[in-house]
Amino acid sequence: MATNEVLIVGTVALDSVKTPFGHVQNALGGSASYASTACSFFSPARIISIVGEDFPPEHLAFLQSRGIDTSGIKKEGKTFHWEGFYEFDMNEAKTIRTELNSLATFAIGMPPSYRDAKYLFLANIDPKLQMDVLDAVNAPHLVVMDTMNFWISSRKRELLEVIRRVDVLVLNDGEARQLFGTVSLLKAARQALSLGPEAVIIKKGEHGALLFTDDRHFSAPGYPLEEVKDPTGCGDCFGGGLVGYLAKEGKHDEKTLRKAIVYGSVLASYNAEDFSLNRLRTLKSGDIEGRYREMKDIREF
Amino acid sequence: MATNEVLIVGTVALDSVKTPFGHVQNALGGSASYASTACSFFSPARIISIVGEDFPPEHLAFLQSRGIDTSGIKKEGKTFHWEGFYEFDMNEAKTIRTELNSLATFAIGMPPSYRDAKYLFLANIDPKLQMDVLDAVNAPHLVVMDTMNFWISSRKRELLEVIRRVDVLVLNDGEARQLFGTVSLLKAARQALSLGPEAVIIKKGEHGALLFTDDRHFSAPGYPLEEVKDPTGCGDCFGGGLVGYLAKEGKHDEKTLRKAIVYGSVLASYNAEDFSLNRLRTLKSGDIEGRYREMKDIREF
Repeated sequence: MATNEVLIVGTVALDSVKTPFGHVQNALGGSASYASTACSFFSPARIISIVGEDFPPEHLAFLQSRGIDTSGIKKEGKTFHWEGFYEFDMNEAKTIRTELNSLATFAIGMPPSYRDAKYLFLANIDPKLQMDVLDAVNAPHLVVMDTMNFWISSRKRELLEVIRRVDVLVLNDGEARQLFGTVSLLKAARQALSLGPEAVIIKKGEHGALLFTDDRHFSAPGYPLEEVKDPTGCGDCFGGGLVGYLAKEGKHDEKTLRKAIVYGSVLASYNAEDFSLNRLRTLKSGDIEGRYREMKDIREF
Repeated sequence: MATNEVLIVGTVALDSVKTPFGHVQNALGGSASYASTACSFFSPARIISIVGEDFPPEHLAFLQSRGIDTSGIKKEGKTFHWEGFYEFDMNEAKTIRTELNSLATFAIGMPPSYRDAKYLFLANIDPKLQMDVLDAVNAPHLVVMDTMNFWISSRKRELLEVIRRVDVLVLNDGEARQLFGTVSLLKAARQALSLGPEAVIIKKGEHGALLFTDDRHFSAPGYPLEEVKDPTGCGDCFGGGLVGYLAKEGKHDEKTLRKAIVYGSVLASYNAEDFSLNRLRTLKSGDIEGRYREMKDIREF
């Protein structure tokens, strides 16, 4: 296993999404799909997940075309399906239906060759599964985790246990406020840091992202998008791009984390430009570097 | 009149404010009070406004102690009084009572010596009064204006007329969306620019501020405050600090506007730390420069 390979646990799903700009049915979705694709622009990725017998082979073929190792994706029953929509302000996904299907009984089966993974991204999935992966890996250099409001409500205890064991916690502003019971993101971040992580990253959608470490603070600008077509997966792309860049650099000091956050933001901003992973399918490294330079310019004073 | 003197039209008020952190009664408030005080850290200010016979002389004495020329403040009837509160999230002022009092019949009386003002800040006040001041000034170098949701609802036509005649429009994100009927701040800014201003600045509270000009974009970070005690007047301090810095520099090219926005943000962040103008009473230039340097650091990548 290459030292900069990133092991990603998360969902691989079929999404039906409606926004004011259109809709898709049974499109490729899931936190691991978005995160691994974003990661693949910087470092090779492997996925631990499950899909159903109904999962379209062309979706797996797409992931493989990005150099992603999909051999850790089990196949059983029916694929996890999420149906949701966004209203005009695009701020929050409204769920119409969640069919867990094969994800409901998913038990982590870790191929032995995955146990030496050095970079681990616990993408948004049940914290119990995040913990199982964490337990199965020998001595990772870096563990980054993401989560979502659903787990904060339903599995807070387990979630806090995972947080205690990771190096970098990524969550959005609403989730940070919910998890730590404060409106102050600064206070929420301090509480999160006191649990163990050396860095806490708070995603704020169009407002950018914040990085908190023990003694420093970084505020990444949001990229000014003309139009957000579908924000689904932007948070996952942020996390995947971030960890992919850190793995490529082979370090995660505060300075490198800052750059990784900007690369994550760039990936997320591109992802919002089209439905499902469609924009990432045609994205080039040159596009990423171009927008990274723009991000430098829009924050210069 | 010194070339870098700033003429500010706005309200001088007595505010009764309650937040989760305390309350004040009949404290010094009003857009011109906040803006001129913030301005005074960079450039001398003069105020055009009105107060009542009941206005405490110590408030005028405070403004004068900041070098502010208060001879353009009429005295008549009873002082404009605003009573409001903020809930836990501190995002939005809720009004309990607005007593316009002498402000209701205020007619701009411009001292002849004010007509050559080169820097003009139309702080938040009835757009009709903003227009009257604009009409009374001979050939200003720079006109910056602020407004609020109340005028967007009640005086939209007059407000748009003022916007057509200013160089820099300052408003907050909710107001930009309301005024231009779009959730996209980028689209709102484009519409604003098409009306005439060469720059549009959108204040986003804790998320910082955005600058839009025809071909460039700047995103200023928010200063991470431990605790917001009272956000009243932060927008006015932002505008006053901004225009004060521009007047001091004697130019308002895009690069200077970026710095001015950060100085405005610094003044606003200090103002939020205490009720009324209390924090600004003890603020030193060194404090401002210190936080300006911090703002640079939290944006570096």
